[in-house]
Amino acid sequence: MIGFALKKMPPSRILLLVFVVAIFVGSFLLLLPAAVTPGNKIGYLTSIFTVTSAVCVTGLTVVDVSKVFSPFGQSVILFFIQLGGLGIMTFSSILFMMIGKRITYHEMKILKEDLNAENTGEIVQLVKRLVMIVFTIEIIGTIFLTLEFLKEMPFKKALLFGIFHSISAFCNAGFSLFTTGLEGYSGSVIINLTIALLIILGGIGFAVISSFISYYKTKKKRFNLSSKMVLRISTILTLGGMVLFFALEYRNPLTIGKMNFFHKIMASFFQSVTTRTAGFNTVPIGSLTPGTIFLFCVLMFIGASPGSTGGGIKTTTFGVIMVYVVGIVRGQEDIEISNRRITWQILNRALAILVISVAYVSTIILIMLMTDHLGFSETIFEVISAFGTVGLSMGVTADMNEFSRILIIITMLIGRVGPLTFALALGEQSKKKERKYPKENILIG
Amino acid sequence: MIGFALKKMPPSRILLLVFVVAIFVGSFLLLLPAAVTPGNKIGYLTSIFTVTSAVCVTGLTVVDVSKVFSPFGQSVILFFIQLGGLGIMTFSSILFMMIGKRITYHEMKILKEDLNAENTGEIVQLVKRLVMIVFTIEIIGTIFLTLEFLKEMPFKKALLFGIFHSISAFCNAGFSLFTTGLEGYSGSVIINLTIALLIILGGIGFAVISSFISYYKTKKKRFNLSSKMVLRISTILTLGGMVLFFALEYRNPLTIGKMNFFHKIMASFFQSVTTRTAGFNTVPIGSLTPGTIFLFCVLMFIGASPGSTGGGIKTTTFGVIMVYVVGIVRGQEDIEISNRRITWQILNRALAILVISVAYVSTIILIMLMTDHLGFSETIFEVISAFGTVGLSMGVTADMNEFSRILIIITMLIGRVGPLTFALALGEQSKKKERKYPKENILIG
Ligand SMILES: [K+]
Ligand SMILES: [K+]
Repeated sequence: MIGFALKKMPPSRILLLVFVVAIFVGSFLLLLPAAVTPGNKIGYLTSIFTVTSAVCVTGLTVVDVSKVFSPFGQSVILFFIQLGGLGIMTFSSILFMMIGKRITYHEMKILKEDLNAENTGEIVQLVKRLVMIVFTIEIIGTIFLTLEFLKEMPFKKALLFGIFHSISAFCNAGFSLFTTGLEGYSGSVIINLTIALLIILGGIGFAVISSFISYYKTKKKRFNLSSKMVLRISTILTLGGMVLFFALEYRNPLTIGKMNFFHKIMASFFQSVTTRTAGFNTVPIGSLTPGTIFLFCVLMFIGASPGSTGGGIKTTTFGVIMVYVVGIVRGQEDIEISNRRITWQILNRALAILVISVAYVSTIILIMLMTDHLGFSETIFEVISAFGTVGLSMGVTADMNEFSRILIIITMLIGRVGPLTFALALGEQSKKKERKYPKENILIG
Repeated sequence: MIGFALKKMPPSRILLLVFVVAIFVGSFLLLLPAAVTPGNKIGYLTSIFTVTSAVCVTGLTVVDVSKVFSPFGQSVILFFIQLGGLGIMTFSSILFMMIGKRITYHEMKILKEDLNAENTGEIVQLVKRLVMIVFTIEIIGTIFLTLEFLKEMPFKKALLFGIFHSISAFCNAGFSLFTTGLEGYSGSVIINLTIALLIILGGIGFAVISSFISYYKTKKKRFNLSSKMVLRISTILTLGGMVLFFALEYRNPLTIGKMNFFHKIMASFFQSVTTRTAGFNTVPIGSLTPGTIFLFCVLMFIGASPGSTGGGIKTTTFGVIMVYVVGIVRGQEDIEISNRRITWQILNRALAILVISVAYVSTIILIMLMTDHLGFSETIFEVISAFGTVGLSMGVTADMNEFSRILIIITMLIGRVGPLTFALALGEQSKKKERKYPKENILIG
């Protein structure tokens, strides 16, 4: 019966259901006495908040994970990070694969939202390959991190820290076992590079990683348009964010102002990579200049690439919309990217995501400003961070009232599932109307 | 020659050209020694800033208009307010009329951007009628305001103040001859109601006013979809803004906290009406709560209705997009408003305006935060206020550096002309491409 109901469900609803069930189960595990260190106790809302943050790979926390949770509790969190990261990557990669096939074989069925039997074998292959690649990358990351942590902690602890931060980084989760995040390691080249590389690989998406592997194996297969766009936009955003961060914070003594030149560049690179969705920080976020806060809000909102562990409206959505805007200004008829035309369906999907995201985020910010006592920039930053599943905070997460915490929990979930997918999951099934209303124009703008 | 060149120009470019010429001429007039009071002197940038603010009916000022400018200077400002208000109203009403005709007679030519001979007679009629209605409303407004001002100033001054504030209110300009705007009159019922009514009439657009007049004359003609939508959205925004403002500022002693209940409601109503584009204030903006600041940013961004003296992305644009979002969530195929279908051209125009506006405003905010020393909320508020030609400010207009002032001048102009119209005016003429690129899909969001 349940199997039958699941088969008739659109994938968007299944995805949402999986997340909700995971949060439900996880929150009970974290409520077990064994999950916290002696003398600590957490409430139900804190438990839900933490698990949602883990499974949505966000990284916002209302308590200090390194102190409040026992090794068992931390393992539960790590498990849900891995589950969330793998889950969303698998789901969107399957969608990606299906879209890719549809284009080639039967263009008319683009984005038809059901998995049919003919794909099953291929999907099993894809998932196997994905899991293997993910574990390989995470193990390599663990080795590097553990070797570095060994310099200042015993082997067992260094290994635990290595595993935790490798998974957390690859899944773009941003959870850390250090109270001040990675601020203590802003000078360590190994930590910076390893974590940044894990974040980039996790945030670039499985399809692009696959394309790379195929390319080096066969030297033949060309990159498809999505992969090209992901690489191009990711590079622009990472370098652009790095240069702007460097310029904005150059003289700020509370962040990178007192570092030497090389150290400044490394910190800027790291912070640019991590802000788009991972959420680690090597500089204190609350001390950033207003310009950097705004820059971070924009980067967090854009986020990572589709088919990845990252959040936000996605690099491709941003890219299509930018090309659209340039096209309007130039008076072009079609939207063109590297000698390919983008269909109106794709453009409309991108615009729908942008509009729904802006509307949703604005509404939550307004409600939270009305019902809580946090500041203007702090609230905007926190909501966008939750929505982009980034997890950076200007330090107000623990100060929020209960209602705000519930809003942030919902926002993390919606940000993770994707606002459009969320809307489709909850919405009624689209059905053809029998009669159409007559058209009438409206004067716009 | 020039006549011929103008005839071949798209109306969007003519509109932009008219504004630029007006700013050029006006800035010279304000630089005349007679334009300022003895002992005062203004630079070229200040002169351009003031005239741009006047002709774009924005109301942001870097100097105190009531003290720095002589009666002659104030008359120049008033002249350009009237010119800007009438100009934009005429331009968009002609467009409105043409769109209305096209729908009925030849649907295919929607939005074709040239005025042809057959329309000329009708346009002359429309402009005559528009000017007559505007002057009638402004004269009635002047009478009420003058009678009220007479209570505390001599007749000549009261009349000057009456004329100035009547035109400034109807044109949604927000310029005032009082140093603290209308803060001194927050308790006056006559001033509040007269100004609010002038703002509403100016902001609701000529087409709607015409529809009303026709309705009461003939009792027959039904409102078209645009007019219905304008009325509905304007009512929702005004009442919604009023209720939220009332709730947010109820206890704020620096704004309405110390007023009595009736006084509180009146101030909330007035501030809600004026924030969407007029820019008068009866409460000090710098003392508002963070929630109200955010609410105001949203209201200023949405703005007034098309075919009006107001700015912003316009009520109809906002309305179409909201209906679109609800439609997606509900899984509807068509966008329907009161038993009418909205065409995809209209939706795409609305989305284009929204996207371009968000992109433009975000970019200017980021640049200004990077290059000036103003605060996070102050900068966001100032840029949106300029873009929506609102003119409210958290009190930093005079503190901006020269570069920021230039940015604000450009933003007022773009906000006034409309970002899409501006893009079309500057953009190359759209031409058919000979060969189309092949289509390719992109994974979105
Ligand atoms: K994260
Ligand atoms: K104004």
